[in-house]
Amino acid sequence: MQHDFCRRHALTTPIVLAPMAGGPGTPELAAAVSEAGGLGSLGVNYLSPKQIEEAVARTRSLTQRTFAVNLFAPESTQPLSGNIDAARAFLAAFHSQLGIASPSLPEHAGENFEKQLEVVLGLRVPAVTFTMGIPSPSAIQNLKAQGAYLIGTATTVEEAERIERAGFDAVVAQGSEAGAHRGTFAVKEEFALIGTMALTPQVADAVSIPVIASGGIMDGRGIVAALALGAQAVQLGTAFLCCDEAGTSPEYRQALLDAREDQTTLTRGFSGRLARGVRNEFIDQAEATDLEPLPFPWQNALTRPMRQAARVAERAGLQSLWAGQGLRMLRKQTAAELMARLKDEIEAGKQRLSTMG
Amino acid sequence: MQHDFCRRHALTTPIVLAPMAGGPGTPELAAAVSEAGGLGSLGVNYLSPKQIEEAVARTRSLTQRTFAVNLFAPESTQPLSGNIDAARAFLAAFHSQLGIASPSLPEHAGENFEKQLEVVLGLRVPAVTFTMGIPSPSAIQNLKAQGAYLIGTATTVEEAERIERAGFDAVVAQGSEAGAHRGTFAVKEEFALIGTMALTPQVADAVSIPVIASGGIMDGRGIVAALALGAQAVQLGTAFLCCDEAGTSPEYRQALLDAREDQTTLTRGFSGRLARGVRNEFIDQAEATDLEPLPFPWQNALTRPMRQAARVAERAGLQSLWAGQGLRMLRKQTAAELMARLKDEIEAGKQRLSTMG
Repeated sequence: MQHDFCRRHALTTPIVLAPMAGGPGTPELAAAVSEAGGLGSLGVNYLSPKQIEEAVARTRSLTQRTFAVNLFAPESTQPLSGNIDAARAFLAAFHSQLGIASPSLPEHAGENFEKQLEVVLGLRVPAVTFTMGIPSPSAIQNLKAQGAYLIGTATTVEEAERIERAGFDAVVAQGSEAGAHRGTFAVKEEFALIGTMALTPQVADAVSIPVIASGGIMDGRGIVAALALGAQAVQLGTAFLCCDEAGTSPEYRQALLDAREDQTTLTRGFSGRLARGVRNEFIDQAEATDLEPLPFPWQNALTRPMRQAARVAERAGLQSLWAGQGLRMLRKQTAAELMARLKDEIEAGKQRLSTMG
Repeated sequence: MQHDFCRRHALTTPIVLAPMAGGPGTPELAAAVSEAGGLGSLGVNYLSPKQIEEAVARTRSLTQRTFAVNLFAPESTQPLSGNIDAARAFLAAFHSQLGIASPSLPEHAGENFEKQLEVVLGLRVPAVTFTMGIPSPSAIQNLKAQGAYLIGTATTVEEAERIERAGFDAVVAQGSEAGAHRGTFAVKEEFALIGTMALTPQVADAVSIPVIASGGIMDGRGIVAALALGAQAVQLGTAFLCCDEAGTSPEYRQALLDAREDQTTLTRGFSGRLARGVRNEFIDQAEATDLEPLPFPWQNALTRPMRQAARVAERAGLQSLWAGQGLRMLRKQTAAELMARLKDEIEAGKQRLSTMG
């Protein structure tokens, strides 16, 4: 018998906040979602151990309810390879437009996973979610030993099965509509672009742990649909991007509100891994020049100064405008207001279905 | 106030059969779906006027209930261009393996749309569906004048809006999960790959005609999900491919039953237009050699002898194995059994939702 995901976390609404590392996700947003009866999440993958401590402390100062932190599995980190000079050359023009130093690679492309994990263990974070793979058996054992609830991310049925076998408590089924990075780890990223409508029930049939549907879900209609497909809950990211508490830059918000559902695309240009965002100048030029990005997280490290300077310059064309395909349904309000509205819509949706033909 | 799609067609189950031209769709399958309370469809795009007459007569001999025929809009037909010799050269090896004459282009790549339309008008077909565009105002006017119910196909919100403005009665929202040809006509096909979960509610918000959701829907869970998203009905194709009444070849059926959800792909190799099918030898080689297909319907005409000979030779690797992303949910049974099962599942799904948390 599958355990009840919402009951286990004392959720009053079956909503998990997507982690949204690197800007949009903030302790304020995570806490607001948890306070409203959902499961807030902090995307800490790009944070140092000290920054993780601060973000978790800040979240705990804002809510006493449960929340999750998200890390990318260590297998997402690839050794440096490829044509570094070409990758730098492609970025040079943008750097000069932004008035920053020429593109160069740092010694370390990302944070040390073991040290991140150590601090997460020490903080006794109630739930830990992983994307892009499965951490080592000892990491899983250590997290479970101190009571952490573990959620994996699957983009195919096989990935969900592996996640269950590894001892995870629940799995996010990430459909192709989803914004930002693909969680894929068992097949080529291009092969794992299954729409939420098709992925959710196939994952639900294959595993006995709770399934959390994600990808293209923006309002109560999508949440009820996901529940009908066999999910116990949903994970929403894009839906929260224009909430007051999100760290989304003003020009990023505007780009989201201006964009249509057919204006997101999948690109490796920003990070080296496939991620969905609003098509902009950077993506267009990366495609036009056939940029061969460095592997993740090297390309991510290489483009970071450009992205940060673009944010200072309020230039949306050179930022990673991660977003899913439900853009027209985006709303501007506080997270508490959005959560209350979603809760009402779920009830109304169930009611409407029960009275249909 | 939106009219009631099911009531208008006296459907007892909100299911439209996808047309599936070129093999799987048969009068027997269409009639069985109509007899079971759905809307059966005949994909007549590749049929001559005489063959259309025969298919419609055969369907009418099997059911007195309503049904639809599907045509590709004339704008899908492109003039011949590209490197014909290269396209022929790519196919030559397959032709020689199959023992058929060298690849050559026929004088006409497809049937004459005006003549097809004339016979459809003469037959007073109750419902006519279009993909890949919108026919001329006079064609629409003539069809409506004799009482035909018109259904368009949209892969973006803008396409749905254009379909409504053109006077169509309903619109299929075709999500990226869907098998076979994309219906896209207003943007580049690559831009219009919106998952059903995201596309359906955005289309429902934008138009006031009934929305029929399609793409990745295989069972009662998907149907209830689509209704929750704002659709009045669903269109299913892949779900019927292994029904006894379908014209799916034995090796095509086996390939479907063997394939996983991450083994379909989008290809232009068979027809010149983007279509989703199970990845096989032909698709792999077309990708490996960077085949530049001729425009639709020329590439379709060019590959037809290969596909037909591959069917005779029972060789799945050289057939177009069109399929959506819900493959693991495929069932083998009669269409009447499947329809009865889907109807039960819809009721059970609504019931389950109404008792959830």
